[in-house]
Amino acid sequence: MRKLFVIGIGAGDPDQVTVQAIKALRQVAVFFVIGKGSEKQELVDVRTAILAEHADQPYRIVELPDPPRDRGVPAAGADAAYREVVEDWHERRAELLEQAFAETDAVGGILVWGDPSLYDSTLRMVERVLRRGRVDFDYEVIPGITSPQALAAGHRMVLHDIGEPVHVTTGRRLREEGLAAAQSTLVMLDGDCSFTQVPGDDIHIWWGAYLGMPDETLIEGPLRKVEQEIVTRRAELRAAKGWIMDIYLLRHTR
Amino acid sequence: MRKLFVIGIGAGDPDQVTVQAIKALRQVAVFFVIGKGSEKQELVDVRTAILAEHADQPYRIVELPDPPRDRGVPAAGADAAYREVVEDWHERRAELLEQAFAETDAVGGILVWGDPSLYDSTLRMVERVLRRGRVDFDYEVIPGITSPQALAAGHRMVLHDIGEPVHVTTGRRLREEGLAAAQSTLVMLDGDCSFTQVPGDDIHIWWGAYLGMPDETLIEGPLRKVEQEIVTRRAELRAAKGWIMDIYLLRHTR
Repeated sequence: MRKLFVIGIGAGDPDQVTVQAIKALRQVAVFFVIGKGSEKQELVDVRTAILAEHADQPYRIVELPDPPRDRGVPAAGADAAYREVVEDWHERRAELLEQAFAETDAVGGILVWGDPSLYDSTLRMVERVLRRGRVDFDYEVIPGITSPQALAAGHRMVLHDIGEPVHVTTGRRLREEGLAAAQSTLVMLDGDCSFTQVPGDDIHIWWGAYLGMPDETLIEGPLRKVEQEIVTRRAELRAAKGWIMDIYLLRHTR
Repeated sequence: MRKLFVIGIGAGDPDQVTVQAIKALRQVAVFFVIGKGSEKQELVDVRTAILAEHADQPYRIVELPDPPRDRGVPAAGADAAYREVVEDWHERRAELLEQAFAETDAVGGILVWGDPSLYDSTLRMVERVLRRGRVDFDYEVIPGITSPQALAAGHRMVLHDIGEPVHVTTGRRLREEGLAAAQSTLVMLDGDCSFTQVPGDDIHIWWGAYLGMPDETLIEGPLRKVEQEIVTRRAELRAAKGWIMDIYLLRHTR
């Protein structure tokens, strides 16, 4: 049976790769790289460095151009329309992977930033390819360090108060639903500094950008005191580098 | 300045250790092992295997017996009393670490199951030692793969629906607060099969025990259909091995 590995490779620090991931990528003969065109060169370089350092056999890289995603439809609150756009995009990506995988008998691999279980669409795409039934294969998932973990390590913090929950959500959801009282909330996929729209004078923020990378930037403090600093710093960094990836934790203080 | 590494080593699979963790533990001369007496031999063996395989210089292991924890006070809902017991226990652990660290000038290390940022008290203990002001040191945190990630990898699943949140909580909280409608809920630290107390006919469960270890056991299905199977299997495994560590994800299906 043909085999595919879906391998989490960490949040941006090449040393965040696990021994399990290294052993898996050493079995891979063909790496499928999806949507490389939209990726930032700095992240592509990290991935290339991971392969160069740890692969110990010849491998091929097959690039699959990302199908265009209709960015016009999704709107705040329009959950059904948003899901439909994403679903359609996933179907077109699945077709590309199916086609590429059908053309080889070798062990395949897909390297995923962070962990395939958190805000990543690779596993949905792989399941789609299997459901379509035109190529048959077994696949294995290798977990990787996520940006929430890199954020926590950078700030040397526990994500929650003792025995309390952590809520992991998106910027869009935070704007729609606000910040719950009794939990720590980790916000991902937020291009809009949604923390500025969260009311309250007793909120603390732990923010981080380019986690695990040479430009890692950390800011923490009372939200109302540091929010403008984060907005300004974020804009400066983004302008200087041409891109930014950031994440933050919010918590009401007692 | 004296240095301490707090190193996440994964959920139970020795290969889940990262290159970053390996590089850190190679700098450590003294590993502090807290509460080894209460640890399961199988987990101690995994940690020993990680050190044996990856450490490349002589190191010492200093065992710190865990102070007894007053298990009489905490009760469901008694948040203040619960926190007080835990706080007191952390203070006594901090004293032990302070004393041990004061007796050496070497680079120290503490290996943590999973990731130091999630349901682990090591960082709170380290901060306490610093606040007490009797030993001064710098410390660094290395993230590690958590059991939620191992659960997701085992079931080859994404933890949430597209663009939706994940809630990470404890068995105690799940019993008190129930299962929210629109989110995936990951339950840790549940010795009581609290999923049996969650009402609803539209809930799916993904359960796993001994994740990443040779006895890894996975069960998933509609909660009402598989809950008794999980309860029975869990009891059998626990009786056979003398201990169990498990975790699960719950989600309402649409």
